Amino acid sequence: MSEVRVHNFAISLDGFGTGEPQTRETPFGHAGERLHEWMFKTRAWQGPGGSEGPDHAFAARNEQGIGAEIMGANKFGPPGWQDDPDWKGWWGPNPPFHTPTYVLTHRPRPSIDMDGGTTYHFLNAAPQEALEQAREAAGDRDVRIGGGASIIRDFVAAGLVDHLHIVQVPILLGRGSRVWDGLEALEETYDIETTSTASGVTHLTLTKRRPRPVEQAE
Amino acid sequence: MSEVRVHNFAISLDGFGTGEPQTRETPFGHAGERLHEWMFKTRAWQGPGGSEGPDHAFAARNEQGIGAEIMGANKFGPPGWQDDPDWKGWWGPNPPFHTPTYVLTHRPRPSIDMDGGTTYHFLNAAPQEALEQAREAAGDRDVRIGGGASIIRDFVAAGLVDHLHIVQVPILLGRGSRVWDGLEALEETYDIETTSTASGVTHLTLTKRRPRPVEQAE
Repeated sequence: MSEVRVHNFAISLDGFGTGEPQTRETPFGHAGERLHEWMFKTRAWQGPGGSEGPDHAFAARNEQGIGAEIMGANKFGPPGWQDDPDWKGWWGPNPPFHTPTYVLTHRPRPSIDMDGGTTYHFLNAAPQEALEQAREAAGDRDVRIGGGASIIRDFVAAGLVDHLHIVQVPILLGRGSRVWDGLEALEETYDIETTSTASGVTHLTLTKRRPRPVEQAE
Repeated sequence: MSEVRVHNFAISLDGFGTGEPQTRETPFGHAGERLHEWMFKTRAWQGPGGSEGPDHAFAARNEQGIGAEIMGANKFGPPGWQDDPDWKGWWGPNPPFHTPTYVLTHRPRPSIDMDGGTTYHFLNAAPQEALEQAREAAGDRDVRIGGGASIIRDFVAAGLVDHLHIVQVPILLGRGSRVWDGLEALEETYDIETTSTASGVTHLTLTKRRPRPVEQAE
């Protein structure tokens, strides 16, 4: 079965995935672009000439084998975007998703076809139900949970996420939206590996443990 | 002038330096010994035969050049130790401090001479005032801030700490006492370096930036 993955979700040392306030001018609040500078330097982001070390290797996985994305309302737009009938996301006419993309919101609207293969669908649905729709659209490819922090928390708490890649950036935001809240004892169901790189970030990978295959009797 | 240092302060991925509840049987609450297993394996802890890699190199710094320690009431004993006139800390007759050791508490008691050079002094004092006393006792050696989380936060927030070594352990405690709260933008006054090691922990070192020496005029 296809897997459910989180990639390149950047947090501060104190665990915040965004600062505050989130506005149309400041999508990440007072964090600005500081959570993502490590990624902007990679080949995955800027193409030839970008760095090809471990930051790139991790960043590039974001695109590999993904057939659908699920994101939260706070990723799709600034607070109140639901009141703007013309809001079509931050990413312009050709968004970087190139797959069916499910936006979880309590105020759904009709789907929007964008250029480049992205279609936005708006769902008022619990994680399990949203995932069923995204999985069907993704076929044998995987489903990416795109954030923000609260959506990642909800999907992890519901036991739905196979792999998380979290990037810890050496800044202290002090306020915003925390990704780890309510996820006590995650180490009991995930193998956690850590890799700090020359750019100063630390990549955390959490991989869900699978039941061992039953050994065949002799 | 002597410096003020924090060493080997271990936290979970979600930033907790202890779990809960803290009792006489469970000094670190539900964290148990999991925050410190990385340290128990080092030569610094167990002597010859212990690991001598980066975990040891960091751990051993705890003892080097220290002339006094300051700790919080929650490190010295379980909640309510102030009601027990016989409580002399967790560490037995020969505690591992071997220097004057200042315990910050709202209910001070007379000093206690222990074996091996440790003397416990009990102070009802603000960080700056406690540090002045500890510095005088330490002479030209440094002062260690021994924790717990709230004392470290208080001394850092007061601008008194030159160097912090925090060890991030790949577990999620979910509750307890957080070390990073209220320390927004620490990266503006500290250089932050990160090193993940084979044991799975990530060492974070925060080193206070110093004003550049004024260049001599020609």
